[in-house]
Amino acid sequence: MAKQEDVFKKIVAHAKEYGFVFPSSEIYDGLGAVYDYGQNGVEMKNNIKRYWWEAMTRLHENIVGLDSAIFMHPTIWKASGHVDAFNDPLIDNRDSKKRYRADVLIEDEIAKYDDKINKEVAKAAKRFGESFDEALYRKTNPRVLEHVQKRDALHKRYEVAMNANDLKELKQIIVDEGIVDPISGTKNWTDVRQFNLMFKTQMGSTGDSQMDIYLRPETAQGIFVNFLNVQKTGRMRIPFGIAQIGKAFRNEIVARQFIFRMREFEQMEMQFFVRPGEEMEWFEYWKKTRLKWHQALGMGNEKYRFHDHEKLAHYANAATDIEFLMPFGFKEVEGIHSRTDFDLSQHEKFSGKKIQYFDPELGKSYTPYDIETSIGVDRMFLSVFCSSYDEQTLDNGETRVVLHLPKQLAPVKCAVLPLVKKDGLPEKAQEIMDVLRFDFNCRYDEKDSVGKRYRRQDAIGTPYCITVDGQTLEDNTVTLRDRDTMSQERVAIDRLPGIISEACDMNALLRKLV
Amino acid sequence: MAKQEDVFKKIVAHAKEYGFVFPSSEIYDGLGAVYDYGQNGVEMKNNIKRYWWEAMTRLHENIVGLDSAIFMHPTIWKASGHVDAFNDPLIDNRDSKKRYRADVLIEDEIAKYDDKINKEVAKAAKRFGESFDEALYRKTNPRVLEHVQKRDALHKRYEVAMNANDLKELKQIIVDEGIVDPISGTKNWTDVRQFNLMFKTQMGSTGDSQMDIYLRPETAQGIFVNFLNVQKTGRMRIPFGIAQIGKAFRNEIVARQFIFRMREFEQMEMQFFVRPGEEMEWFEYWKKTRLKWHQALGMGNEKYRFHDHEKLAHYANAATDIEFLMPFGFKEVEGIHSRTDFDLSQHEKFSGKKIQYFDPELGKSYTPYDIETSIGVDRMFLSVFCSSYDEQTLDNGETRVVLHLPKQLAPVKCAVLPLVKKDGLPEKAQEIMDVLRFDFNCRYDEKDSVGKRYRRQDAIGTPYCITVDGQTLEDNTVTLRDRDTMSQERVAIDRLPGIISEACDMNALLRKLV
Repeated sequence: MAKQEDVFKKIVAHAKEYGFVFPSSEIYDGLGAVYDYGQNGVEMKNNIKRYWWEAMTRLHENIVGLDSAIFMHPTIWKASGHVDAFNDPLIDNRDSKKRYRADVLIEDEIAKYDDKINKEVAKAAKRFGESFDEALYRKTNPRVLEHVQKRDALHKRYEVAMNANDLKELKQIIVDEGIVDPISGTKNWTDVRQFNLMFKTQMGSTGDSQMDIYLRPETAQGIFVNFLNVQKTGRMRIPFGIAQIGKAFRNEIVARQFIFRMREFEQMEMQFFVRPGEEMEWFEYWKKTRLKWHQALGMGNEKYRFHDHEKLAHYANAATDIEFLMPFGFKEVEGIHSRTDFDLSQHEKFSGKKIQYFDPELGKSYTPYDIETSIGVDRMFLSVFCSSYDEQTLDNGETRVVLHLPKQLAPVKCAVLPLVKKDGLPEKAQEIMDVLRFDFNCRYDEKDSVGKRYRRQDAIGTPYCITVDGQTLEDNTVTLRDRDTMSQERVAIDRLPGIISEACDMNALLRKLV
Repeated sequence: MAKQEDVFKKIVAHAKEYGFVFPSSEIYDGLGAVYDYGQNGVEMKNNIKRYWWEAMTRLHENIVGLDSAIFMHPTIWKASGHVDAFNDPLIDNRDSKKRYRADVLIEDEIAKYDDKINKEVAKAAKRFGESFDEALYRKTNPRVLEHVQKRDALHKRYEVAMNANDLKELKQIIVDEGIVDPISGTKNWTDVRQFNLMFKTQMGSTGDSQMDIYLRPETAQGIFVNFLNVQKTGRMRIPFGIAQIGKAFRNEIVARQFIFRMREFEQMEMQFFVRPGEEMEWFEYWKKTRLKWHQALGMGNEKYRFHDHEKLAHYANAATDIEFLMPFGFKEVEGIHSRTDFDLSQHEKFSGKKIQYFDPELGKSYTPYDIETSIGVDRMFLSVFCSSYDEQTLDNGETRVVLHLPKQLAPVKCAVLPLVKKDGLPEKAQEIMDVLRFDFNCRYDEKDSVGKRYRRQDAIGTPYCITVDGQTLEDNTVTLRDRDTMSQERVAIDRLPGIISEACDMNALLRKLV
């Protein structure tokens, strides 16, 4: 575990050092849980977005795009349930003046029982030596059993309170368990109260023209409120989908794990509208289709798993997560939800506009059902970045850090390197740049030894290095070095566009999906 | 003038009817000055962004990208001057309870003198008939001269007050001119006060962890505060640039002209850092380079002009706008500003971090100077859309609405149309779709007569219609119809990718720029 944490720290440092992800407003000592994408990060992020967009809209004739605004009419968030139910339970300690998430305090308390159990086990293991039967000890030792019992009882009580949204009971649990503030060390707690996670601002200048609006906490609602506009102006027939990429904002109390949970983040969401009763078929279709999209990147099929939800949100009749193996465990990267007709019906109710679809085949109107696929751009970025990070010890004993990024997602596709900064090699290298730059993001680098330059490109995951040397001037060939194998081959300049394109073009990836 | 207004109304209606731009939250009766991009609008907008991004980052080795967050540390907006000086002067009428921009009230009053003058002239023209010498009348008629004198005096007084940011004087002008509220008809005005245009929100949950933050009113500052990060991790040497595309937000009191002035909008900004003293050369370079970028779209060079600023912002030592001829006159689409070292110096002062560049050639450190190119995505979209809109009367007396969009920016590149919905033509058309969809955004359409389908594609600016007929099954040829000329030619299916690609690929456009 410690080792994985170390690796993750190195990854975060690497992301900064090589221009992928910077802490936001860093010269002002940062802004909590907000990050900027640097010169390499933005290119990789754009590639991820493009892969998703083209897989959705080009490969599916019945899916079109949308780009709705972050600002929306505030009643939309009443209709969606976010005004009333998008809350965290918070509690203050009167002595430290610090505020905490009540659920996190209790979850930490539950985890303490596990610590106690593990301590008991470790102590016994030390005492009994090799003859120690851990499984038996856990099942029979009275002190262990007491901890297990208390832990399970607390966990049960906590779950009931959370599901009932019972704030008084959450407070009572904190009191009964004697939970103390880690800073003040006291139990001087306020009541638990709800804290809405939406960011609020005011639009308009004053009086009757001013209104409180929210920064959208998800992009989905922008699709639902445009359902009629897109369906009618695009002459769409069910089943059809609307895809959207955009920013969303949540005032997270506990933001964690680098860009995994941020206050400002980006989503790629697609809402697929189907006939009522056919949603389960389509739910299965999208589970399969989305998993294939992930796996086509070639990062290892074993790193993905589905996590079906047992407890469903009030609007859903089926839901699953696609989880990816991050350095801190399997974590949700994408959600696939069968949202029924909940959202369109709510907007019909709150807007007073009829939101239905006339199905020419069935000869009747209905409120369509909806399957949502929702993936976090930043989480996807993090999963690709973590999965590609590799520290290698080479045959000569040296080490290198290399990002084995899926080549189609790599920020830079090739670097053009004159072996030396003279003898016409820089000029020749520039000629090659002028051919390649229209089709690929290329870098030119003439500083330092060619070995150092290779390392720099490895560190940002550039698939190919093209080295221009004396022979190039004679026969128009260059050495082409492969990022992963580090093997070099001599190829004609003419062949470069074909080789790079075959390995790096988005189309190669898209073709795997059909 | 009335005619141009009519045309603009038609353009706005067309944008909605054909899935380019919808009013935001329309089923909730909209949200002021906020718009959503529909299924065709989002594709065109993405093409505009891609054209800019690739022209900036691929064609210039010394320009890299960035994607900084909308949320930034609030002190950044102190440093930039936005907290103190990004204001509109507002005044309330106590009877109507309405709020107005004081400057707009006075400007409207100035315009009234022109109305009076024009009325005098029109009256005289009617009285004197053909012998009327308008120029002479304007120069000599005492009533006209009195109006001119009053107008110019008011204008002068207004300008002085605005430049001095003298709110009391603005109020006094309103009182002295006897300006009445158009709604209540009274002169019962409050004092004038400053209204900051930034949207404010709260981050964090409470107490010491909570802070007021702003939605960025421009993307530029995200670049300045990342200057050191990008320069160091990207090993950039001056001169170099950082390019960024992103949303910005301004709580405009008077939002106008469709997507021309919105409260939520998108910017494409590039900051180019140079040696102090070399900024004027680079200012000229970027004027030329940016104009070429616009003109390469082929919408007519006569539609562009520079508007050099006479009065400069406090941070600038040169500034110009690129204006485009919109239906409502020449309007700013892009600004090019020589911002000196103002921003980096301010951030050095406010952050306490040294923000300098060591110039290896000069052997010394300095604060770089900066040339900014800043273009509104939405304004660019509007200029392309308006300029392409055309109502044509055809030889047969029918009319068509066609968007002569630059082909590289068109949302859909080609439509594949089976002549009839039987005899294997839809299947053959799908085969063609399956080839083309990887390289182009294509639409398949089998509904209605082929003539109607052509009109639908004309209306969204699709450059090519590919019609599949009986002959196609025999010899693998199709008819290829050109959007602008409406001419049709018979071409082999194999030739389609080449033809479409030559006309529509972004690279063709980019090659014009080098």
